[in-house]
Amino acid sequence: MVSTARSTFRAPAELDLAEIDPRGRPVGPKDKSAAAEAMADLATVLDGRQEALYAEAVGGGTRSVLLVLQGMDTSGKGGVIRHVAGLVNPQGLTISSFKKPTAEERAHHFLWRVRPKVPAPGQIGVFDRSHYEDVLIARVDSLVPEDVWRGRYAEITAFESELAAQGVAIVKCMLHISPEEQAERLLARLDDPAKVWKYNTADLDSRAKWPAYQQAYTDAVRETDSGTAPWYVVPSDRKWYRNWAIASILAETLTEIDPRFPPATVDVETERARIRASVVA
Amino acid sequence: MVSTARSTFRAPAELDLAEIDPRGRPVGPKDKSAAAEAMADLATVLDGRQEALYAEAVGGGTRSVLLVLQGMDTSGKGGVIRHVAGLVNPQGLTISSFKKPTAEERAHHFLWRVRPKVPAPGQIGVFDRSHYEDVLIARVDSLVPEDVWRGRYAEITAFESELAAQGVAIVKCMLHISPEEQAERLLARLDDPAKVWKYNTADLDSRAKWPAYQQAYTDAVRETDSGTAPWYVVPSDRKWYRNWAIASILAETLTEIDPRFPPATVDVETERARIRASVVA
Repeated sequence: MVSTARSTFRAPAELDLAEIDPRGRPVGPKDKSAAAEAMADLATVLDGRQEALYAEAVGGGTRSVLLVLQGMDTSGKGGVIRHVAGLVNPQGLTISSFKKPTAEERAHHFLWRVRPKVPAPGQIGVFDRSHYEDVLIARVDSLVPEDVWRGRYAEITAFESELAAQGVAIVKCMLHISPEEQAERLLARLDDPAKVWKYNTADLDSRAKWPAYQQAYTDAVRETDSGTAPWYVVPSDRKWYRNWAIASILAETLTEIDPRFPPATVDVETERARIRASVVA
Repeated sequence: MVSTARSTFRAPAELDLAEIDPRGRPVGPKDKSAAAEAMADLATVLDGRQEALYAEAVGGGTRSVLLVLQGMDTSGKGGVIRHVAGLVNPQGLTISSFKKPTAEERAHHFLWRVRPKVPAPGQIGVFDRSHYEDVLIARVDSLVPEDVWRGRYAEITAFESELAAQGVAIVKCMLHISPEEQAERLLARLDDPAKVWKYNTADLDSRAKWPAYQQAYTDAVRETDSGTAPWYVVPSDRKWYRNWAIASILAETLTEIDPRFPPATVDVETERARIRASVVA
């Protein structure tokens, strides 16, 4: 599997979000039906590679995958969990949602609530929001002084290096949508009785600070992108394209780490004979 | 949705496992392709009802679903997680595997490790093995004295009543396979390099105690079956039938509890106007 999606969507060193079209389709399927076909193939890759990752850990392996999802409200973090993470066996999947910190969480270091959610060996962990909120909303809403949030870039980099060293393959995706698309999606939530529960008036407060958030995302990506903890900026105005892109990035990552089914630890012939000899009353 | 699967597979009061054919297909699809068609419909029901359950909890609801999976080795607990639980959005799914208790777990009451895994409101929780191990292997291998494991039936019943009272819809499935089918599946694991990691020599030890386990299952089901915590005995020699049966039981349960999307808590017209008025620089 060539790493077309990873090389296409990897954040450039001098990221400028204004230069990345949220409706762009720079590579891959050009329409929804082509994407559906591609997703069927990606499902096979993801499911197979995840099974091997899980098995590898049963055999003593220490590797795992962490998919970090960040993006403005309605950008589709939940959709990616449903349509991309939903392609693999739930036994090997851990979803962690980081909401507004509780009083207890606020009393601790910002990584305190994150560390226990790092995926165990064999697991694909998905972070629905993450420690990046602590350099995004924390900065935009001045929840902490500037020197504090600025210092967090280095803390995050050190944390992610530590994870990489212990075998966590990190994939960070920023779901890049336009404010026009966000308005459409917010209106759509209001129109649908099965979606209106997702509507939160606070979303409009974040929306009003769009430029500040874009700046915060840009700096966060620039300051924390690395070879072992890369950022991808995923055009997300088209849901089917976003899902295809993230499924591809994940499949390419799993293909690269190439998890292996552990070899037999028993003597197969002996065990065959034992099974055949076992008579059950 | 009529409750055909639930009424068919519900354990009778005087359960006799010898009377239930593990290869039986008393209701529903008669072959694999008919089952695949039925599963596509069930996927729609499960996904839709689970979305409503999740939404209901966001709106303050307290209900959840707990699917307990028990069965001899190779009976297909993992297959049900993959093919049935895998049909719903992973965001609303919590899988808990109960393996051989650790030293710390053994030092506590047998329900100590189970309570924190009870599904939160809005979640479908799946127990891959469960507190029933404490009246199954604990009994067959004499890990505790008889008066202790016998006393656990009442403790389990009280625990499950408590869960039901707080809004947990409990569904307990015993995956019923024949010893002949188990032998085939153990041999198949040995034959496949992608499956041999699942082979565990301890499985043959349990296999050797088949009649004792069948007795332990029978008593556990008889002693703990109730209207709010029903047991289902699912013929599991055919994997596609087992998956269809459990998907159906789960779909019927979700349909009965009928989770509801919460109504809008905002004034929709006001919010529409706010969104339309919001201009992003």
